[in-house]
Amino acid sequence: MTFSSKLIEKAVEAFATLPGIGRKTALRLVLHLLKQDKTVTEQFAAALVAMREGLRECRICHNLSDEDVCQICADARRDRSIVCVVESVRDLMAIEDTGQYRGQYHLLGGIISPIEGIGPADLNIDSLLQRVQEGSIKEVVMAISPTIEGETTVYYLSKKLQPLGVQVSVIARGVSFGGDLEYADELTLGRSIAARLPYIR
Amino acid sequence: MTFSSKLIEKAVEAFATLPGIGRKTALRLVLHLLKQDKTVTEQFAAALVAMREGLRECRICHNLSDEDVCQICADARRDRSIVCVVESVRDLMAIEDTGQYRGQYHLLGGIISPIEGIGPADLNIDSLLQRVQEGSIKEVVMAISPTIEGETTVYYLSKKLQPLGVQVSVIARGVSFGGDLEYADELTLGRSIAARLPYIR
Repeated sequence: MTFSSKLIEKAVEAFATLPGIGRKTALRLVLHLLKQDKTVTEQFAAALVAMREGLRECRICHNLSDEDVCQICADARRDRSIVCVVESVRDLMAIEDTGQYRGQYHLLGGIISPIEGIGPADLNIDSLLQRVQEGSIKEVVMAISPTIEGETTVYYLSKKLQPLGVQVSVIARGVSFGGDLEYADELTLGRSIAARLPYIR
Repeated sequence: MTFSSKLIEKAVEAFATLPGIGRKTALRLVLHLLKQDKTVTEQFAAALVAMREGLRECRICHNLSDEDVCQICADARRDRSIVCVVESVRDLMAIEDTGQYRGQYHLLGGIISPIEGIGPADLNIDSLLQRVQEGSIKEVVMAISPTIEGETTVYYLSKKLQPLGVQVSVIARGVSFGGDLEYADELTLGRSIAARLPYIR
């Protein structure tokens, strides 16, 4: 790609460092910004800088937060006796989007992965155990992806949590709604038969 | 999508205004920036603002430029007797990328389109005629997309240019290299037979 402007070249390269954005797409985005009013670019840039400077980690659950304590932890209407353990902000948002959960969260910041060199000490596990030891939490729900690393993490956490007298649960695994039994993998289908539930209405 | 942070929400919305970027992709980009060092976001934002503030139109050819006159117009090694008329910066860049053209350019800033309400007066046509009238230009090459609007624009320009005694040419249209004759549209294939060339070597 031949640029006759250093300014465009730098802006294109900036966009192209983002995941999933190649140089052609980056150029399209840059030309789009050039077509808009100058203030659009200024506000775009300001929103990013404000986010990067203002965001911090919630000191209770490690969620990304505008304040010292995040909106969820600060919300008095949410059930504080139940904590859902997730890997990342994205998983937290996915659960929030379901509208089915009204408890608190705890973000691990990753999962145990010996291949990637991530051990329990690299995750927010001590702060979880401390929250549980404080006594008001009755149940810890593991909402970790059912991969090998995820299962390892769930196993490790349950070993640490059970001695503290808290109930440890795991989100249900089984065939997806709208999924076709014929195409479900054996492990999932096997588990969903073994963990069958009484049919209600 | 449920955000527990206003700062993230604003940054996601900023990205999501860009073409081809939805809210899920926007969130992925924002989380990517959050994982990087703070300076990455600052430099990204600064590159965009610098581009939007610093870029201007070349006063000769209307190309986007860092200076009053763009790099191409200022380049003394380029042939100043030939001008290639293009619709936009993107088309200019596509031609530059071929490495087959060493003349000057003229950007129309669009093409004549009665449906979109774009007439000759909205395009950089007067400045093209003026450049030709100054006398040093011998050939004007039309490199406009061969659409109905493009053909109209080429026709209009040629009517204006020919009385000035300049040679007007049009980029060759025909079947693409690597293209399959069977799948070429009739118009293109018909034209490429009618405009056949002597076979060299």
